[in-house]
Formats: sequence, structure tokens, C-alpha cells
Amino acid sequence: MTRRVAVLCGGFGGARLAQGLQLALEPGALTAIVNTADDLELHGLAISPDLDTVMYTLAGQANLETGWGLRDETWSAAEMLARYGQPTWFRLGDRDLATHIVRTARLRDGARLTTVTAELAAALGVASRLLPMSDAPVRTQLRTAAGWLPFQVYFVERAQADEVLEVRFEGLAAAAPTAEVLEALAGAEAILLAPSNPYVSLGPILALPGLTDALRAAAAPVVAVSPIIGGAAVRGPADRMLASLGAEPSAAGVAHLFAQRYPGLVDGWLIDRLDAGQAAEIEALGARVAVTDTLMSGPAARRRVAEASLALAAAWTLARTE
Amino acid sequence: MTRRVAVLCGGFGGARLAQGLQLALEPGALTAIVNTADDLELHGLAISPDLDTVMYTLAGQANLETGWGLRDETWSAAEMLARYGQPTWFRLGDRDLATHIVRTARLRDGARLTTVTAELAAALGVASRLLPMSDAPVRTQLRTAAGWLPFQVYFVERAQADEVLEVRFEGLAAAAPTAEVLEALAGAEAILLAPSNPYVSLGPILALPGLTDALRAAAAPVVAVSPIIGGAAVRGPADRMLASLGAEPSAAGVAHLFAQRYPGLVDGWLIDRLDAGQAAEIEALGARVAVTDTLMSGPAARRRVAEASLALAAAWTLARTE
Repeated sequence: MTRRVAVLCGGFGGARLAQGLQLALEPGALTAIVNTADDLELHGLAISPDLDTVMYTLAGQANLETGWGLRDETWSAAEMLARYGQPTWFRLGDRDLATHIVRTARLRDGARLTTVTAELAAALGVASRLLPMSDAPVRTQLRTAAGWLPFQVYFVERAQADEVLEVRFEGLAAAAPTAEVLEALAGAEAILLAPSNPYVSLGPILALPGLTDALRAAAAPVVAVSPIIGGAAVRGPADRMLASLGAEPSAAGVAHLFAQRYPGLVDGWLIDRLDAGQAAEIEALGARVAVTDTLMSGPAARRRVAEASLALAAAWTLARTE
Repeated sequence: MTRRVAVLCGGFGGARLAQGLQLALEPGALTAIVNTADDLELHGLAISPDLDTVMYTLAGQANLETGWGLRDETWSAAEMLARYGQPTWFRLGDRDLATHIVRTARLRDGARLTTVTAELAAALGVASRLLPMSDAPVRTQLRTAAGWLPFQVYFVERAQADEVLEVRFEGLAAAAPTAEVLEALAGAEAILLAPSNPYVSLGPILALPGLTDALRAAAAPVVAVSPIIGGAAVRGPADRMLASLGAEPSAAGVAHLFAQRYPGLVDGWLIDRLDAGQAAEIEALGARVAVTDTLMSGPAARRRVAEASLALAAAWTLARTE
């Protein structure tokens, strides 16, 4: 089995693949490089939804009912915050609040988000390395008929009801992948792109200055897991965003999008059995294709998908060295 | 009944007298001027224990079991903060945390503590005016055999176990009573000193530059309720502090302390029936004395003590105008 693996990911699908990889690999072998362009400040607190979803999932502490936040959660502070007239559309559980409180205090003390994230993850006993894509703030904005919206306003407050016409990342010019991120990519034996939203989860990571260069320079193959199964996203608006932004909402459509935006970047695609008929079309783009059941409901399925993606990476490496 | 009343107070006894006054007076007639020298920053949050105890009590939201914090409280965030290695000696409930989160965010936005306090109290439906003694930070430090200790370290972390040898207030030189405090004192028809610790609750308020001058210049009488009943404090270390700082732990001892430190400031003392034998000694210091049951267990007792203190103030005013 591959030893050092890096996975680029957002929250939901990213956390699931990361958990599968953690189960499949030796402790410490996995580095998750996580989107921070969904981050927001609310009630004066620095909130990193994707980092926390991945962290809580890897710690075995994820709330399986909500799909975000911590399990065994209570909501007393949220009720009181509402009473104080604070915005209520982004609900924060009491246990979850502790994460944001500690993160905010450490950042205000001058610590890097990378350092704080490592401290939080260590405290929760996470056996993998968790890295924010950057220590500098990058914020996704989406253009809709209602104008430009901050990501979480679109995603949570307006429940993804708006058609997305354009995506931009504020702060990108002043941001960079951290030394830790570049090191993880350079040292990896496989680099995975999680089945996360290509525009707003993987998009900001790949848009960081120098990031795609680092991926191309890495010795490891880049294997992507399709976020689209049978023409639909498992969760979230990826399918609708593909359609509104001019791509086909299918596994092949996503592969075409990557081939166009990041030529030659993806060496392998893991797609679902439902999409097996699109394998030849994707292979024609210059990538190896493997087919499996990619739905990652429980830990066993997550591990299986992780192992299939690692096998695809290993096959690529083997083919190149032969 | 007296119309506009100001009460200077700390947390526990101060909150009880303030509640009694609020019950006895028309809505809006009471201004509570609250000690902030017990304030602390913890987990990056601005915490004002005395202000919050008074606010929660006046809002009918006080936790009667603990004597501090909010009723119907949960403790999920505290458990998580402990898991993150945060100090655990100052426990914060989940509902209570919301108060500190909002206060911290508003202060960081540049709002005055006076403004933030008014916003929080309004949101909780408090019918009285709640004023921090100052917008500038003042912090009590206590000298003990273990050295100088911040107030909450002495009070909560070390459970008041140390003998207090000296008291000082950091930040005093740069602090001042707010315009709102001075206005409330100038406009009051009675000014009460709550049965709060004379050293660490009333002490910091009275130590503010110009505060005792404002009290002496005010038209209203200054009536104090003794914090000592039968030689003991109802709660907290006031009796032991009186002893270790060279005063007698009795109602008369407190009156002597005030007469020595703030000559001519207190016009009337309300003392407990248990201490009726000390009335003549206190009157000899130049103050009127009234005697009642001053223990303020429930709302009815609090209202009764409030009314007795207001009656003492009214008697003083009547005597002066005759």
C-alpha cells in the first residue's frame, strides 16, 4: 500500500475520502490539504467549516445527522446568541463553538492557521496531518442574479437556491500554499483530488499561486475521484453549478472541465459504476480510469473507495516505471 | 418612593440588592454602577463577572444553584475547551459563553463597554440601567504569601484560600468613571452602596479618579448596607479580608473602615438586627443608622432590604430639608 498520501479536499465528500484513506493507511501517512475559502468570521469568531468537517470526521467525532459539526452536540449558546440579536443562519453548536473560540484566540495571538489546526487536531487525536491550503485568507464569492454573494451566504443562508453565474476568490493574489502544503505534495507517493465541488472546494486550492505547478512537479500521480455519480452530486450544488457554469453535469463533464482548466494535471479518474459508459471518453483526455462504487456512506465504503483510488495511483506509477 | 436611585455594587450581594431595588422602584428608575475590576480575559473572551451576575439577576435569569451564571445552563463547550487544553478553573456555561462572545466581538469592533452592556441588558429585557464603573480596564491584584495574584486567580482558581495582605488596582491612573456614571450619581435621589466586599467590589469603584468627589458633590444621600452580618460575610472572603487587612470583621468595623478611607462619605448605614448593638458606635461616626433583617435570600427579602435602605435615604433627605 502507498505510504505517503496527500489529498486535496473540501468538507463533505473530502472528509469521507480522507476518512477512508486514514483507515487504509498507516497512522500519520495521510496529509489532508483542505479548502479554506469557505471560511467566515461570525460573532467575532474565525470559523473554518471545511477544516472542521475533515477534522471532526477524522477524529470520529462528526455529527452524522447533520453532516457537519460535532456529534453529541447541544445548542444552548446558539439560542442565547439569537436572543442577543446575532445572526442565526449559521448555527454553531456548543461543542463546536469551543473549536472556534480556541482557533480565534490563537490566531489573535499571532499563530498561523496551520499551527492552530495542528494543535486542534492533535487534541482530538487525529491520526493524520491536517493542513489548511494557506495561512492567508482567501474567500469565495459567487455571482448570482442577486449579485456577488459570500460563499456561506449562498451556501447556508440562501440554501444554494441561487444559480451561480461566476466564481471568484478574494485574497488569492496575496495568498500562497504554505511550505507544509508544498512539502506534502513533493513528498507524496499519491496525490488525490477528493470528490469535492470542483469550483468552490477544489477550485480555490488549485487557484493558489504555484499550486498546480507544484502538482505537476510532484513525482506522484494525481488521481481524482469524480464528485458526480449518475449525473448528480451526492450532496451540495456541484451538479447545478456545472450546468450553470457551462459544463456537463456528469463524470465526463468534470473530467473535461479539469482537462480544460488544468491541462495534463489529472493522471487518473476514479468514477462510479453508474458512469462506466463514460470511461472511454475520459481516457481520451489522457487519463487512466478505474470504475467502482464511489458512494461513501459508511466507513467500510469510504475505505474501499480510498483503496481503489490508491490502487489507481499505484497502477499509474507501476506503468510509468515499467 | 424615591424615583431615581443609583447603586454601586459588585456581583453577589450587589445583584441581590439591585434586584430588590428594581422590585421596589418604577421600571427604569434604577441605575446599577458595577465593579469591573474583577473582569478577565480567558480563551480570548472579555468576561465581566460582576456585570453579568447583576445583569442575569435583574433579568430573572440567574443561576440560583451556583450563585453565578445563567439558569438552565449546559456545559458542552467547557468540556470541549478542556479537551483543547484550555484552562478549566474558570468554568463558563454554554449560554453564558454567548454573552462573552457578543461582548468580545462588539469591543473588538470599537464599542465602549458601557454601550455593549446596555445592548446585552436590553436584549435580556432588564428594566434597569446597567453601567460598568469605567470603560477603561482596571484589574484588582491581591498580595498574598504566594505573591501578587490577579483577582480571579485568588477568588476562583485558589478558592480564596490565601490570606490577603494588600490590594491594588492596575490601570486606575488611566481609568475614569464614565460620563454616564457621573450623570447617574448627579441625578440620583438616593445613592446606595450595596453589601459588597468593601475592598475588592466597592473599593475599585470608589478608587476611580473623581468618583468620591462626585459622590460628595451629589445632592443625594449615600446609604450603605453592611456586608457583614453577625461578624461574617454572607458569601465570599470579606470578613477574612477585613481581619487580615487590619479592620474588625463586624458591621461597625466596616463603618470605621469607610469613615477612615472616605471621611464623611456615608450618610447612612443599614445594618442587621444581629448587629443592632453596634448602632451607637456607627452613629458616633456621623451617620444615621437603621436596623433590619438584611439577609436577602429571596425576592421578597431583597425588596424589603431595598425599601429599608431607600427609607433611610428618604429620612436623611427629609431631616436635611426640615
